[in-house]
Amino acid sequence: MLDSVSQKRKPPSIGEKALIRALRSRARGSGASVRLGIGDDCAILHPPARSEIVVTTDLSLEQVHFRRDWHMPESIGHRCLARGLSDLAAMGAKPLAAFLSLAVPAELTVAGRGPSWLDRFIGGLLALADRYHVPLAGGDTAQSPLFDEAGSPQTGMVSADIVLLGSTRRGRALLRSGAKTGDILYLTGALGGAEAELLALGRSPQSFRRLTKAAPKHPHLYPEPRLAVGSKLLALRAATAAIDVSDGLSTDLAHLCEESGLSAEIEAAAIPIHPLARKAEKDGWIPSALHLALHGGEDYELLFTASPRTKIPAKIASVPVHAIGRMKAHRKDKPLIEMTGADGKQTPINAGGWEHFR
Amino acid sequence: MLDSVSQKRKPPSIGEKALIRALRSRARGSGASVRLGIGDDCAILHPPARSEIVVTTDLSLEQVHFRRDWHMPESIGHRCLARGLSDLAAMGAKPLAAFLSLAVPAELTVAGRGPSWLDRFIGGLLALADRYHVPLAGGDTAQSPLFDEAGSPQTGMVSADIVLLGSTRRGRALLRSGAKTGDILYLTGALGGAEAELLALGRSPQSFRRLTKAAPKHPHLYPEPRLAVGSKLLALRAATAAIDVSDGLSTDLAHLCEESGLSAEIEAAAIPIHPLARKAEKDGWIPSALHLALHGGEDYELLFTASPRTKIPAKIASVPVHAIGRMKAHRKDKPLIEMTGADGKQTPINAGGWEHFR
Repeated sequence: MLDSVSQKRKPPSIGEKALIRALRSRARGSGASVRLGIGDDCAILHPPARSEIVVTTDLSLEQVHFRRDWHMPESIGHRCLARGLSDLAAMGAKPLAAFLSLAVPAELTVAGRGPSWLDRFIGGLLALADRYHVPLAGGDTAQSPLFDEAGSPQTGMVSADIVLLGSTRRGRALLRSGAKTGDILYLTGALGGAEAELLALGRSPQSFRRLTKAAPKHPHLYPEPRLAVGSKLLALRAATAAIDVSDGLSTDLAHLCEESGLSAEIEAAAIPIHPLARKAEKDGWIPSALHLALHGGEDYELLFTASPRTKIPAKIASVPVHAIGRMKAHRKDKPLIEMTGADGKQTPINAGGWEHFR
Repeated sequence: MLDSVSQKRKPPSIGEKALIRALRSRARGSGASVRLGIGDDCAILHPPARSEIVVTTDLSLEQVHFRRDWHMPESIGHRCLARGLSDLAAMGAKPLAAFLSLAVPAELTVAGRGPSWLDRFIGGLLALADRYHVPLAGGDTAQSPLFDEAGSPQTGMVSADIVLLGSTRRGRALLRSGAKTGDILYLTGALGGAEAELLALGRSPQSFRRLTKAAPKHPHLYPEPRLAVGSKLLALRAATAAIDVSDGLSTDLAHLCEESGLSAEIEAAAIPIHPLARKAEKDGWIPSALHLALHGGEDYELLFTASPRTKIPAKIASVPVHAIGRMKAHRKDKPLIEMTGADGKQTPINAGGWEHFR
């Protein structure tokens, strides 16, 4: 098909073959839930009895979600999978299997003095998959085209779509829509760190080059999906609603409010701010660490609600948990989210853009 | 995140928002198996009791799988979903839900005098989904970047990853690996039609412009996944192995042989050749219709094996079925596939390239 559509413009065939080989040979198609992995028309999964299946897909596109001149391939692979795992965490689900659809330019599949870009990407993805026992059970591969519609050469772009299947006990998945008036709003970890590290990365990509293995304290390059927290919340029936903070607190809290038909009030002083965001403020890179915590994306923390009668410990699965506000009935003439400052004044918080900075 | 990574190069924001709106408003998230569709961190599915889940993902990339200057958007949407449904058909599975991860350039989401490219793409995809009662239960969207790594403007490319989940009764899915020595090899429909229509499309794209609805006799633009045949084969326990012919008979039969550890012999005279391939030969576009039938891709017919003791009717679910050869023990020094010609001579058939034409 490639031959026919792109006619004489066929790129070197080593690319696609190497890509498939690399993926197949390194994928773990086994695991209790996977009866059949890569190598047939479909993979076959056996979900646990009395479970329901949760499914999420997340696109990672070059120039949108990462830059090849900034991000190490291992980080790109890690982040690709982490995005999907974080969605499972937000449902309280246990991962069953991952599927990867990957388009890469041919030159990235060729090893030089070291391993190829592709090998390093897959290495980063599988290191995280192994840590959470997620089998890579299938997917698709294609060579990213090197020619545009007019036939002019252009740089092929990497695009990776990660698909994750998970399971929860039937009827128990944590939804965005379950919050009740009066529920307390909780947040795991701290916010603003990913955006702050991204700023640092953009200023000096070369100083991060050696970070080819997942490490804590790198919330942008190696975010940690909160699977253990989500799973604990589900097991304890502690949360009434949950969402992962991927697009920023202001945006994701608005989603939770909308789906639950409620409003939220949060306390500025209660929002846990990541040390990297504080440092960025101190160094004068950003006017306000709180702004980054409210609107910065990709922290992959969990935001959840629980009844005031439910005792939520200060740590769940070793991750700090902070109460940051509460849910209240929504009135049409009132903003969806309000934040109470140190002075007791309430400011409306708009998704993606704090009023104060407009 | 888009803001931070691509910095000042932000494309018009109508694109991504319009894209999500269009998908959400037109997606059918309901259906018996879908408890929760688009709008949470994950979709939630309830597979039937005692079933196993089959999963497939298929990438459709501009310039690799389709060309925007050749293919109508409706055909691209149809073909995108048909690829995944055909994989389910080859397992004998019933579709549970589809997920679509879609990256498109912003300008394709904007309606002009008629509906936008995106609307027409989704229309084509959902028309096929509706016909097979497949709910579109989620996915992801992104704006395809308009700038390359060096910051130069370039044409954004469309990429679509379709994910399909299906179910079969536990332990009953049709595999590639189940064929036995002596089994008869069967094929649905006819081959070579898709490649022949692609040739016609490339010669005169404008003459196909009005074909915005699925119609039979258009094997390339609107292939028909053989779901009813697959499901019938499974219900009757008739097939020992199955695969869909997406990469061409020579390639896909080789897969079936490899996974079953066998060889195959096929009869040239028994291979059903699509009328469009015969016409292409008659018109002098191609030297041999049989060559197209052996190596042309994307016919999406089913290739399956059955014991010689199993009676296979001439039609299954109204689709003609032809016996084209048989499976035999594999010997290391012999080719995987041999074809017997009208003269009784045997020719080795290599995946993707017939010896005769080398």
